[in-house]
Amino acid sequence: MTRSTRRPGEFELIARYFRPLAVDRGALGLADDAALYRQRPNDDLVITSDMVAAGVHFFADDPPESVARKALRVNLSDLAAKGAVPFGYLLSLALPDDWTEAWIRKFVGGLKADQARYAVTLLGGDTIKAAGGVTVAVTAIGRVPKGRMVLRSGARPGDLIFVSGTIGEAALGLRVRRNRTVAPAGTKPLVDRYLHPRPRLALAPALRRYATSALDVSDGLVGDLAHICEASGVTAEIEAVRVPVSAAARRLLAADPSLLATILNGGDDYEIVATVSAAAAAGFARAAKAAGIAVARVGRIVPGKGPPVVKDATGKTIVLDRNSHVHF
Amino acid sequence: MTRSTRRPGEFELIARYFRPLAVDRGALGLADDAALYRQRPNDDLVITSDMVAAGVHFFADDPPESVARKALRVNLSDLAAKGAVPFGYLLSLALPDDWTEAWIRKFVGGLKADQARYAVTLLGGDTIKAAGGVTVAVTAIGRVPKGRMVLRSGARPGDLIFVSGTIGEAALGLRVRRNRTVAPAGTKPLVDRYLHPRPRLALAPALRRYATSALDVSDGLVGDLAHICEASGVTAEIEAVRVPVSAAARRLLAADPSLLATILNGGDDYEIVATVSAAAAAGFARAAKAAGIAVARVGRIVPGKGPPVVKDATGKTIVLDRNSHVHF
Repeated sequence: MTRSTRRPGEFELIARYFRPLAVDRGALGLADDAALYRQRPNDDLVITSDMVAAGVHFFADDPPESVARKALRVNLSDLAAKGAVPFGYLLSLALPDDWTEAWIRKFVGGLKADQARYAVTLLGGDTIKAAGGVTVAVTAIGRVPKGRMVLRSGARPGDLIFVSGTIGEAALGLRVRRNRTVAPAGTKPLVDRYLHPRPRLALAPALRRYATSALDVSDGLVGDLAHICEASGVTAEIEAVRVPVSAAARRLLAADPSLLATILNGGDDYEIVATVSAAAAAGFARAAKAAGIAVARVGRIVPGKGPPVVKDATGKTIVLDRNSHVHF
Repeated sequence: MTRSTRRPGEFELIARYFRPLAVDRGALGLADDAALYRQRPNDDLVITSDMVAAGVHFFADDPPESVARKALRVNLSDLAAKGAVPFGYLLSLALPDDWTEAWIRKFVGGLKADQARYAVTLLGGDTIKAAGGVTVAVTAIGRVPKGRMVLRSGARPGDLIFVSGTIGEAALGLRVRRNRTVAPAGTKPLVDRYLHPRPRLALAPALRRYATSALDVSDGLVGDLAHICEASGVTAEIEAVRVPVSAAARRLLAADPSLLATILNGGDDYEIVATVSAAAAAGFARAAKAAGIAVARVGRIVPGKGPPVVKDATGKTIVLDRNSHVHF
């Protein structure tokens, strides 16, 4: 079997790799200038754009499937936090001069698998060459029942703060990945968390019904909760001991307690932090459990202004070395 | 007057420069994870994404205002061709290590002026650092009355082909810009056309009413018309002498007739090419005139397959040296 080493042009790339991903009729087979979305009168649309770049949000030698998944999932995670059901996405891909068709094939394979997993379709986009490394810009579109988007601005004093899943694994995974050493036993799942965010879409209905505010944890639990506090005109107390941590993370933390800052501020968790009134807390916990998502109560909203305060088991304030992970 | 040389972080950049552009309530002041779009039952949405990068679609030392305008306008041009009225856009901006606040200020100034000009609002986006040069990904959203989006696929044999404005100036302007020589007299408007596409939004109502197909000319008149032919299952004849050309372009063409290929295939025109049935042609021309947009009939759709054939004034086929401008 012979294979041409000539690389395909933009139109061939679209026809061969991206068109098969455009399964919705509104994508017009990527054979038009724009996608068509027929509106549904009972829904609002929720729209978000996030961009990821080699050397910043992923490593240039990460598997292309993982790059694709991360680019898509960080956007789906935003939709999940807003209580939205994702529908489709547009993808703009900047490729370096030395791109290969094999890389594209794997990248598209990652998108295809995630389209099936999350029931989304490619709606449009662009492919360009650019100096530097791979840059991927995704715009994701989801639906919520009219008026039911979950905002950052609805937290009220007395609300309880819940977090889904476990916090800190991705940031610890990034440390393992950066050191490029043989990973200590039990740290592979941490690296996997860094590579493969898991958007908590199953939690969206519970958020719509019960949450007064929510967002997804991309910049770090404390830093992102600070966004909720700012938008809502309140502040918060977090009980560090209640923050859910995986067994692998717990082992690393036992060996080096200073990793608490990495866990609470590291980011890339793509878990949901939500505030729920005390009266609704039991209902929220039940709905989350029914959806198969573990949630843990980690603190409460209190009157005041400013970033959240983190307390230890004795109620003493813990000063962390930085307030939020900064990609930028 | 002193000014700090510390560069703002991502959140400061958003607050200081991008939040003032988010004038629609649905943008939630860029203080949430996603934008909210309340659907209107009588409209369809038209959504498009285009990405531009330094060194490919613009020069790294182009004025930041021009970079912003180009990134936005190439997307608005797609919406115009589909008969849509733009509403808002999301912008993802990858900045090189040596970005400056002064550059951002001018870039945002360009966006602000265009938001007023085209009645659009920033809805969301992302700002990241990345290796390489500036890369800008825009997703633009427009509205059309339900079922009225103008597609590429509706051209039928016998339809007349119309082009708005003039063709070839931007490609000639790029040549002038590339040579970096003192521009010959009369070529400044050409460079301006390359830097500043003019989305033909005023033509959208006439397209919705009369056009059987349309797109905007980004890859070159002949190459883009080939997209209409392919999507519609037809082919086309273009009469070169009818293609509208500006006085500046005509002067260059008189000195070097080989520039005809640059004019017809060069791209970056961001004019509209539309097909209209013979019966509707007079109505379309009147509606375009009423909208203040010059349109010229340049050829006709004929039965068959394959890219358009270009003919000279005697009816002889002209073979151009390349079929379409390729950014990629």
